[in-house]
Amino acid sequence: MGRMSENPTAAVLAIGNEILSGRTQDTNSNTVARFLGPFGIDLKEIRVVGDVEPTIIEALNTLRARYSYVFTTGGIGPTHDDITADAVAKAFGVGIDFHPEALALLAARFADPADFNQMRRRMARIPEGASLIRNPVSAAPGFQIGNVFVLAGVPSIMRAMLDDIAPRLSRGRPVLSITVAAQVAEGAIAGPLAVIQARFPEVAIGSYPVYRSDGYGVQLVARGFDLSQVEKVAAELTAMLQAAGGKPERLLS
Amino acid sequence: MGRMSENPTAAVLAIGNEILSGRTQDTNSNTVARFLGPFGIDLKEIRVVGDVEPTIIEALNTLRARYSYVFTTGGIGPTHDDITADAVAKAFGVGIDFHPEALALLAARFADPADFNQMRRRMARIPEGASLIRNPVSAAPGFQIGNVFVLAGVPSIMRAMLDDIAPRLSRGRPVLSITVAAQVAEGAIAGPLAVIQARFPEVAIGSYPVYRSDGYGVQLVARGFDLSQVEKVAAELTAMLQAAGGKPERLLS
Repeated sequence: MGRMSENPTAAVLAIGNEILSGRTQDTNSNTVARFLGPFGIDLKEIRVVGDVEPTIIEALNTLRARYSYVFTTGGIGPTHDDITADAVAKAFGVGIDFHPEALALLAARFADPADFNQMRRRMARIPEGASLIRNPVSAAPGFQIGNVFVLAGVPSIMRAMLDDIAPRLSRGRPVLSITVAAQVAEGAIAGPLAVIQARFPEVAIGSYPVYRSDGYGVQLVARGFDLSQVEKVAAELTAMLQAAGGKPERLLS
Repeated sequence: MGRMSENPTAAVLAIGNEILSGRTQDTNSNTVARFLGPFGIDLKEIRVVGDVEPTIIEALNTLRARYSYVFTTGGIGPTHDDITADAVAKAFGVGIDFHPEALALLAARFADPADFNQMRRRMARIPEGASLIRNPVSAAPGFQIGNVFVLAGVPSIMRAMLDDIAPRLSRGRPVLSITVAAQVAEGAIAGPLAVIQARFPEVAIGSYPVYRSDGYGVQLVARGFDLSQVEKVAAELTAMLQAAGGKPERLLS
């Protein structure tokens, strides 16, 4: 897929001790990956780091210099361990202060003004020059600064924030993919598979073995920009799996 | 948890286009995180990169210099897109060749020698100086070179390989944790929570809001080396959640 490099690129920076301790399975990165596909934006890297300010700053500055977009998740809530907004401000070398619109959005959520306490007000602290990202679930906004989108860690909120980001993204050429699966051992077809890959350098073929209690098999994924090329490769993969004794079927992917 | 920095550290480097495209949800990182906890080894970073040799080399060299251990997952199968072993050899600046024991382990799997084809033999190519990691599921071994453990991407195989790694790891002081949950809004208790955190700097308190169809709540996690300190903090968190109108309960974590 030679021309893939012309697409905008992206990284996810997931922030949270709970992922590194194993307590929480990160699913936000997968959500962002699936979200970006149709935009033709290539997710190139995912990093997970803990709630440690210098670590967040270093990772963010590396990633935002390297990719078109960075999506951070986590660490923008009201508690003492929510340090993402401050870390982002420091990474960009800008100040951070209460954002009037963020304050208004949050205040509207509390019938009793006493409930809008000091810690909840922390969620309205936004780095200078950032624009807000709407949170229709729990009001506390995310924000965009430069090419960095700062999102919540709670999956349902993170997903909802993506709706507000969509119109802000440059678009590339989406990668189209077809998956063909069969109960054939990966090692039995690796040779002819490499031959097909060599004949179609514009289509990237991935091979994923499956080991399940109900048997083994392989899923072959053809990915590329040109649907007719991808279809051609899928047909070759299907014929090859048939020749190896399998009953290949297309999967929705 | 000031003394946590004395523990051995680790990173996971998950390798595979299928994770970045969103096709596959990485669960191996979480498995490694949970595996390392009881050893007192602190997982500090997770990275996911694609099947791109220079990218793998750069990430691996960064991580192995920075942490006590690196665990890679993925890219050691028989197909053309399995490039991890070569990338690791290049990262270490060593050669790569067929490993006699690996060849024997793989050959034993095939009743008909003709099935042990050229592509399957690729899985016996091991960087110079590496030691094998047993794979009781499908024979093809992983390997250890220096402080790097190179593991399969298929979750059941990756998990099985960890058994062979366990005796090779230095041990630190395990982090003990207690989780207390209640149906209380995170923002309502963020203030008293910060006060408790400030009084117990040796225990790290994480706060994780829960938004579910059946309501909202918060899970508070106290983590530290000293069980009596962690218990003390858990008791304070319980009392605080009760004072906020919740019915706190301990979760198995």
